[in-house]
Amino acid sequence: MTMKNTVLVKTITQVRKAVEAAKSSGKKIGFVPTMGALHSGHGSLIETAARQCDFVVVSIFVNPTQFGPTEDLAKYPRTLDADMELCRQTGADAVFAPEANEMYSREQLTWVDVEKLTTGLCGKSRPGHFRGVTTVCAKLFNIVCPHVAFFGQKDAQQAAIIKRMVIDLNFPLEIVICPTVREKSGLAMSSRNKYLSESQRADAGAINQSLQAACQAIISGQRQSTAIIALMREILDRTGVIETEYIHIVDSESLEDVDTITRPVLIAVAAKIGATRLIDNILLDAQALK
Amino acid sequence: MTMKNTVLVKTITQVRKAVEAAKSSGKKIGFVPTMGALHSGHGSLIETAARQCDFVVVSIFVNPTQFGPTEDLAKYPRTLDADMELCRQTGADAVFAPEANEMYSREQLTWVDVEKLTTGLCGKSRPGHFRGVTTVCAKLFNIVCPHVAFFGQKDAQQAAIIKRMVIDLNFPLEIVICPTVREKSGLAMSSRNKYLSESQRADAGAINQSLQAACQAIISGQRQSTAIIALMREILDRTGVIETEYIHIVDSESLEDVDTITRPVLIAVAAKIGATRLIDNILLDAQALK
Repeated sequence: MTMKNTVLVKTITQVRKAVEAAKSSGKKIGFVPTMGALHSGHGSLIETAARQCDFVVVSIFVNPTQFGPTEDLAKYPRTLDADMELCRQTGADAVFAPEANEMYSREQLTWVDVEKLTTGLCGKSRPGHFRGVTTVCAKLFNIVCPHVAFFGQKDAQQAAIIKRMVIDLNFPLEIVICPTVREKSGLAMSSRNKYLSESQRADAGAINQSLQAACQAIISGQRQSTAIIALMREILDRTGVIETEYIHIVDSESLEDVDTITRPVLIAVAAKIGATRLIDNILLDAQALK
Repeated sequence: MTMKNTVLVKTITQVRKAVEAAKSSGKKIGFVPTMGALHSGHGSLIETAARQCDFVVVSIFVNPTQFGPTEDLAKYPRTLDADMELCRQTGADAVFAPEANEMYSREQLTWVDVEKLTTGLCGKSRPGHFRGVTTVCAKLFNIVCPHVAFFGQKDAQQAAIIKRMVIDLNFPLEIVICPTVREKSGLAMSSRNKYLSESQRADAGAINQSLQAACQAIISGQRQSTAIIALMREILDRTGVIETEYIHIVDSESLEDVDTITRPVLIAVAAKIGATRLIDNILLDAQALK
């Protein structure tokens, strides 16, 4: 394993300078925006970026504008030393880790909003969340100016929204969505898994089991979303500790509910275990519908 | 007068290619976004861009999303041949004149909104107007990727909003605001002046006269906005044909009303002559308050 000599920068001026230098020697710039507390899901994004690009920038910024007033902004895990270590191991060239007042140096009056895609799924219980995400991504895209930006499929709604924002606002970059990385139990990697106790973590495996069961049901011929959702809910309920927020079967681009499955869909779940909110999903391709 | 060999392009791909070629030979890119129906105000923007930059792109796009349902989108003047001629004379290298379906190839779900600055002045009578302006400017900035973009002081509120959007979203470009160009009568150049009859055009000179009178009053020591606004309204009313929509004396950056003038301000007017809505303004610098 080769270790990169990853440079850590804190200011917009510095990261722009680093990127400009790389661009001027003809390098293709890859960008992985994160909130830190990096895990192997992020690692896989950085490795993919390093394979596809010549210079990889990772941003680490716990963006206050995407947290609701009752959410976990203050206690969101911050682990910069370990994050730097993972960035070195996975091939990042630069880490951009600004303070909040570097990103929001004056009152933020300008917001980027994506209609329709932001209202369902997580948008329902997290009003304003996606406005914060799209706004900070627009800022980061304009700061880093990458050729390609990499996001995880785990945040499926975010991925659909960012892809749409890039198309609608003609950002001069490509969005690549990378597969979800999972723990052995099948639990999707998430920085918020740190909040789980040992036994909660074991129970959380049921979320992925419910998605796998849905997949099997569809492969076996089930096409009615209500039946599939009922099956999934039963698996989650059986744990006795998972409180399901939503299960939706939607079109993967429009995120609109699909009643009868006749084309590729996204099956998305949000659930709470104790105080910890987790999300997961599976993309069902045309193959599964054959 | 040297004539430029201005190239006309219609697609996003073409304009990006032209800009990339210019950038790769180290040229500084200037950008003048317009809705066409070019007059010497635009001409002066293009000339300034040509002086400050090495490659000047002018966009000509009557942006549907900034017109209200009862506004003049359909009858807005379209004069591409004359516009090209003016671009050649003033030093544009490329004109980007897309069709609406090139700019909005699918339903636009993503919008850029600037709070506070958009609610007063013209924002009051033109709801959604500035959302359309900021969104199309964000798109155009991402398509053209200029180093500098040039806007006219005539649209003072638009200038303040675009400047704020660029700061808030960290667009990697500089905004330059150029002075208003006027007809001999003092009437600010505007594409909408084409709608005026001969006599209306003469009467419209009163708008600038009211701004000049306000300036003189302030230089003479008047500091109360209400008194200055009353004076201006009287000058406009005297014409018998000008219907004043607003007169405001505001902070030039926050656009908030100023009651007692103790620092540089923007004095802004909107008025109708017949069916034609005209705006004008003057920036009062610290010198005038000495």
